[in-house]
This record gives sequence, structure tokens and C-alpha cells, in this order.
Amino acid sequence: MTDRRNDLTAWDRNHFFHPSTAMGAHARGESPARTIASGEGVYITDTAGRRSLDAFGGLYCVNVGYGRQKIADAIAEQARSLAYYHAYAGHSTEASITLARMIIERAPANMSRVYFGLSGSDANETNIKLIWFYNNILGRPEKKKIISRWRGYHGSGIMTGSLTGLEAFQKNFDLPRSPILHTEAPYYFRRADRSMSEEAFSAHCAEKLEDLILAEGADTIAAFVGEPILGTGGIVPPPQGYWRAIQAVLRKYDILLVADEVITGFGRLGTMFGSDHYGIEPDLITIAKGLTSAYAPLSGSIVSEKMWNVLVEGSDRLGPIGHGWTYSAHPICAAAGIANLELIDELALVDNVRVTGAWFRAALDQALGDHIHVGDVRGEGLMAAVELVEDRDDRRFFDPARKVGPAVVAAMLEQGVIARAMPQGDIIGFAPPLCLSREEADQIVAATLHAIRQVLG
Amino acid sequence: MTDRRNDLTAWDRNHFFHPSTAMGAHARGESPARTIASGEGVYITDTAGRRSLDAFGGLYCVNVGYGRQKIADAIAEQARSLAYYHAYAGHSTEASITLARMIIERAPANMSRVYFGLSGSDANETNIKLIWFYNNILGRPEKKKIISRWRGYHGSGIMTGSLTGLEAFQKNFDLPRSPILHTEAPYYFRRADRSMSEEAFSAHCAEKLEDLILAEGADTIAAFVGEPILGTGGIVPPPQGYWRAIQAVLRKYDILLVADEVITGFGRLGTMFGSDHYGIEPDLITIAKGLTSAYAPLSGSIVSEKMWNVLVEGSDRLGPIGHGWTYSAHPICAAAGIANLELIDELALVDNVRVTGAWFRAALDQALGDHIHVGDVRGEGLMAAVELVEDRDDRRFFDPARKVGPAVVAAMLEQGVIARAMPQGDIIGFAPPLCLSREEADQIVAATLHAIRQVLG
Ligand SMILES: Cc1ncc(COP(=O)(O)O)c(C=O)c1O
Ligand SMILES: Cc1ncc(COP(=O)(O)O)c(C=O)c1O
Repeated sequence: MTDRRNDLTAWDRNHFFHPSTAMGAHARGESPARTIASGEGVYITDTAGRRSLDAFGGLYCVNVGYGRQKIADAIAEQARSLAYYHAYAGHSTEASITLARMIIERAPANMSRVYFGLSGSDANETNIKLIWFYNNILGRPEKKKIISRWRGYHGSGIMTGSLTGLEAFQKNFDLPRSPILHTEAPYYFRRADRSMSEEAFSAHCAEKLEDLILAEGADTIAAFVGEPILGTGGIVPPPQGYWRAIQAVLRKYDILLVADEVITGFGRLGTMFGSDHYGIEPDLITIAKGLTSAYAPLSGSIVSEKMWNVLVEGSDRLGPIGHGWTYSAHPICAAAGIANLELIDELALVDNVRVTGAWFRAALDQALGDHIHVGDVRGEGLMAAVELVEDRDDRRFFDPARKVGPAVVAAMLEQGVIARAMPQGDIIGFAPPLCLSREEADQIVAATLHAIRQVLG
Repeated sequence: MTDRRNDLTAWDRNHFFHPSTAMGAHARGESPARTIASGEGVYITDTAGRRSLDAFGGLYCVNVGYGRQKIADAIAEQARSLAYYHAYAGHSTEASITLARMIIERAPANMSRVYFGLSGSDANETNIKLIWFYNNILGRPEKKKIISRWRGYHGSGIMTGSLTGLEAFQKNFDLPRSPILHTEAPYYFRRADRSMSEEAFSAHCAEKLEDLILAEGADTIAAFVGEPILGTGGIVPPPQGYWRAIQAVLRKYDILLVADEVITGFGRLGTMFGSDHYGIEPDLITIAKGLTSAYAPLSGSIVSEKMWNVLVEGSDRLGPIGHGWTYSAHPICAAAGIANLELIDELALVDNVRVTGAWFRAALDQALGDHIHVGDVRGEGLMAAVELVEDRDDRRFFDPARKVGPAVVAAMLEQGVIARAMPQGDIIGFAPPLCLSREEADQIVAATLHAIRQVLG
């Protein structure tokens, strides 16, 4: 037993190249490593028996919570009957077809088809390819540039990492690359002109977007990509009126809108999609995480009727579309998706997001709203963030070298609660499973308050 | 039951956007659609009860064959105990660590770490990012271009589709993109100068590569990416001496070598890796397909000690590496990988590839070698291809508009055998599960002969 544990520790350090990890420190055993063994509800337990309340739901993805036997059973049954067949050239499985149907039933109006991928990143790759193909078919070969926002997160690939607007994912990787452009983040708390109202700041963001479009030439701009609420960039809901103002600009210049709903899809904001919540009418929707609650890797691009019709015209003219992943619509992942979407309904989790989300936000506000180092408490549904500042009245940020955010998160972990220190700021992020109870919400809030006091007094 | 079947047909046409499919024809019900229900060994059965011998192993990926309950059990057990936790910031599961160890144990010498992805495409994305990061750390920011081959297949993303050198995956998608360059395919049968020996053609390919490097400037070329044997480009083993000649050029100019072993990894050529078979000494190895036999989506980048040391230096200087997929090292996929690699050993499948592969090749040669429309019979291990020509002596190809290859493959399907019509030629491709028996091999050969006679006389 101990031998096995020692072996695992050595193998981990010597052979496993972890994502988003300080590789040298991990290999030398200088940084904390943790091997997770099991999970139940909002809790995970590691191989040392240590239990934590996961207030970040993995990476905002374990939406139905851990340990759901219904999904495990669906996966097991599919693995036993047919673990794999491909979906190329019109092939399918009952699971892949059924899930495509269930997604469209739940999607906003005017959505037509689902292209399946594995990760949020590859779904955004698919989106870019479809956007370029679309404009080629329409005879607009110059209309290819894509605009995303600073602080957006859309993946970790070369083009999707280019859509992303965060330093850590770009520096030293030669990103962003052409033809990706960035515009202002709708980050009201960090607005330059603090006298601006939310509506005025939204108008300002829309103006900045329009300026960029005009500077580049509208006939060169194919699409705008955005998360309904900024996720990894700081968990930032848009200011009042933002999506209305942005969509008006996009329509004016015939620019496609991609709603990256990898985090917000399937209930996170208290509506099935974030687009429903904010009145967004996208041409493409990116989905992943909540689609399977991470029980198996699955993503998708939901394509609107408008785009689909053009893509079909292209395929009729040019033949089968030259785009495919071997594991597109993988049956095990589709089976997990079906069981997961059923569970979201059966457990009325979207309702719970509204009710418990409001409770959680109110509790955070009440506990932390007056703390001198808390600059902002924000969120929507079951996404929330607490932004820490050196000085509340001046909105003066801490020196990043102090690593205040990571210190608070580490102190929370000591108390058995996992939160996430978001990049580019001292921002404590929360995205618990959607089955969170009030008691569990209170426990997260208590741990946060305790940790902030411990680190900052 | 019939209602359910009708529903599925309608849902499939109305909601499911299939990869590599003529979208309009599928949506209008004009092209054959097939829903697969179960599999056993080399056979699959569809929902209409029709059984086929899958001589392409899905998409050259179901290496251990269909219906392996050992892998299904491993997946089920992992799904029940812990379906997901992420691997960011030093987190792991026993399955992900164990599989990393098992891969390095099986990999060629001097390989150090495994970065896990979902698809072959995303693993090649990771490779490109790691190559760029590596040269940034070494202070060579200009050394970034990557050379692949015409007819290579390395994925369907924007950069990985650029590495790919096949028309269908590039035209109308604005690919290939900078900084990807292509060099000559090692396709001996299609060499321009038919008087060349294999060795002379290999020297010619190496010369072409060197010319390209010198024309671009060696200090701008970061890496060369190639499959040990061309896969989707036509299932083409390299000519004698090819890899020796290519590697000599790469070493001369300090250019990294990526062996894309998505098809050849884990036994397909009768050795654990294709690199073992051809004496390739790669800096990075791309793996996917055979790693799990497609029972769950999992890929990886195996990183050499030499590259790892530089990456660690970079991370020590710059912090955690800004690269991650949410589902990197997914526990269910890792559990599938472990059971799959164990099964390959237990069933001695790599040995079977050598023995049955030789039998299959000999049977193909004997049955088809003299047919007037068979220009080439080629292969290695359990990958093989039969290339059809209009005129054998002139090596005159059929008019692509006649679609001879697809017609032969359709005729084979009528006889219950699935082969694949490879792009850019009339090439019948085979890559059956590695558990293929002699009787099954004979059945494939008989169906091929019958179909060729039926279509071409
Ligand atoms: C909004 C958004 N888009 C895309 C992605 C990329 O998803 P993946 O990590 O599965 O590639 C993420 C991941 O966090 C995300 O939050
Ligand atoms: C050699 C090679 N590399 C990469 C890939 C891409 O793998 P995936 O389809 O899983 O993205 C393939 C797929 O066929 C392949 O054959």
C-alpha cells in the first residue's frame, strides 16, 4: 500500500506532464501534488483521505456534482455494447443522434445542428473553420478576421489560445496570431473612467468595437466571439445593456456572433443557456463542460439555421466537408451527455441555480461586502467572484508579486474548501456544482471570510 | 420500435452535423446513413441487424477489436468511483499517473514525459506550442517554422490541418497557414522519375528537404513532422533508407523531429512504436487511437528528455506553463488506456500483427498482384493498401471523376467488409483490428478481389 503510494509519487513526478503546472517544481516535489480518489456531491476525497468541498466544480464543469451513478451506469452500458464507432460519412450511434436532438431541444431559437468535438478548445477551432468556410461560400474571401475580448478565455490551442485574451496563455507561445483581434473587456469594476454608469460603459465597449471594425474595414471582419459572462478572465458579468449594444454593432456590419457557452451552457446562470439570460442571439454556440458535467470529454458547436443553410450549399457544391476528429460524437461521451442532461431536468438543477445562487450571492455580500480589502463581489447564478484590493476607496490593486489571491485560496483549502485564484488580479472565483445546498453555500462563504481575515486581517 | 427508428432517422438528418460528410445529401436522406449498435472482435452490427467485418478498425483505431469487456469494466469502475478530476496545478488520479508510467515504459529510448490530450489533432497542437516555447526559451525566437509533407495527415484543426497536406482538408478553409511548409511525400510508387531506386528516391526526398531548409534559412526552421508510414495520404510505407536520410538532414540543422504515431503507436506495424520499426529517434511523439483502442478519447504528446529539460528551465523562469485542456488526463480515458495496453500485452497482439500482417500481405499479393488494374500492393504490419490504376505498365491513373476507389469500397461493403477509399487516388485502405485472424484476413482479401472484378472486370 505504502509502496504503491511511493510508486505513484515517483511516476507522477517522473512521467506525467501536467497542464498549467510549474513543471520543474512539480518534478522536484517542491509544490503540493494531490491525487484524487473519489467524489460525492460537492465533495472530493484524495488518496490520503482528505476531503474537500469543491467550490469550483473541477474546472467549472462538474455541474451535476460528483458520484452520479446514473451517468456512470449509462457510460458502463454504452462501453459494454459499443464503446466506439466513428461518425464520418453519415455514421452514427443511437446515443450520438439522441444527444444531438436533446441539445437542439434545449438550445435558443433558430439553432439547427450540432457538430461534436472533445474539448471547448476544439469546438472553437471548429467554429473558426466553419466561419471561414461560410464566408468563402458566400464569396467574401476577405471577411475572415475574428474579434474577441481581452480577458476572454476560449481555449489553449494556437488559434483558440489566440482568441483567449490572457497573458499566461499567450506569452512565450507567440500568441495571439493573425487574424485574431481583441477589443475591450466588459469589466465594469476595472473601467478606466470610474464616473461611467454601467449603461455608459456598455456604450463605450460597443463604440470601441465599432472603432476597431471601421479601422480594419467591416468587410474584413467575419465574427465576434464572447462568453456571455467572462469566465477565466475574472468571472465578470457584463454591465447593463452590454449585449444589446454589442449585437447592434455586429448586425450593422454583418458580423457573425459566437457565444462561447462552455461554462454557461446547461444551467450555470439559472437558465439553460447564458444566451437566454442575456438576450443573445448567436450564430454559433460553443458547448462543453456542462454538456457531460465532465463525466466524459465532449464538446460541440451548435450551428444556427442561417449558417447551416450556407454550409449545405457549400457541401453540395464542393463535396463532403473536410473537417473531422476521429472521436467526434464518441458514443461513450454521448451516453454520458444524455444521462447528464436528463439528470439536470430530474433534479431541477437549473431552478436550484436560481434559488441557491441568489442565496450564495447574498451570503457573500453580507459576509464580505464591507471588508476593507474587498473591492467587488459579483456573479450570476452559480458563478461568483470576490475581488480583493489594497485600497477599497481608491480601487488600488495589490502588487501582483504579493500573490494575495493564491494565498487566500491556499488558506481556504486548509479549511477544506476549493476555490480558484483567477489570473490577472486577486480574484477568488467560485463555480460550485449546480446541486449546491444552502448549508454548503454558507460553508464556502465562512471559509472565504476566514481565509481573507487570515491573510489580510 | 419502428417509431423509435423513424425518430432516430429524422433526428439524425435534422440535428446531427456529421464530420467528413456531404451535409446536404445526408440531411435530405440521399446518401447512405448507418447507425451502429454493437461490436465483437473485428465485426460491427448496425441497428438493422446488418453485420460487417470492419477491415479499417473504425478509423484505424479499434486496435484490440470491439467488445472487450475488460476495457468496458475498467471504464465502468472508474466512472463509479471518480468520473472526473482535473490535472491542473499538479493534480492527478491513480489512473492518469499509472498510464503515464506505462506509456514511457513502452516508448522508445530517451522519452521522458507524457502530456495528455483528447485527439490526435490536439496533441499535435500541443507539440507545436511546445516547439515554439522550446525555441523561445533557448533564445531563438526566429526558429519557428514547421515542415511537414504533402499527403501527411496530422489533424483537422487550423494549425494541424495546416500540417496536413491533403486538399480536402485545406481547400475552402484557407489552409495551410503560416508558418507551416510542406515538402515531398515519400511516395515511391508515385515518384516522378520511375527509373529511381528506393534508395535514390529517399536521397531525393532528403535533398528536397535540405533545399527547402536552405531556401528558408535553417535558423527559421524549428521542426519536421511526419508519420512513420503515411496514413490517410495513402497508406504508404517509406522507401528504403528514407528515415535515415531525413534524420541526417534534421540533425545537421538542429531541427526537432516529431513522429506522429497516432496510427502507428501501440503495435500497428508489429512493433510497439513505428519509430522502433524504422529507427526513428524523435524529440516528440504524437499518440492517440491505439492508446485506448478508441474506447475513450485520449491522446498524448510524449516529450523527450532533451526537450523536457528546456521546458523545465522555461517554467522555472516563467511560472506554470500556460497550456491546458479541461479534460487533459481524464480519468475515464486513462482507465481505458491502462486496460487497453494490458490487453495488448495479454493477447500478444503485437506478435499477431507480425504474423497475421505477413499472412494478409502475402494473400493480397497473391490474389491481386497480377490484376491488370492493380498498380501497387503495399503495407507494413496490419496497414495495407491496394492502389488501382487504369494502366499498369504506364502507371496511368483513373480519371478521379470515375470514383473507382469509392465504387470498389461500396462493392466490398455489399459483401460485408468495410475498407476505406483513401483520398487523392484510387486507393483501397486496410487497417483491421490487431486481433485479426488468418480466416478473417482471407475473407477481406476475397471481398477485395470480388469487388475489384465487379467494378473493373
Ligand atoms: C469559455 C471557455 N471556452 C473554452 C474553453 C476551453 O475548453 P477546454 O479546456 O475543454 O478546451 C474553456 C475552458 O475553461 C472556457 O471556459
Ligand atoms: C497520423 C494522424 N495524426 C493525427 C490524426 C488526428 O487525430 P484525431 O482525428 O484524433 O484528431 C490522425 C487521424 O486520423 C492521424 O491519422
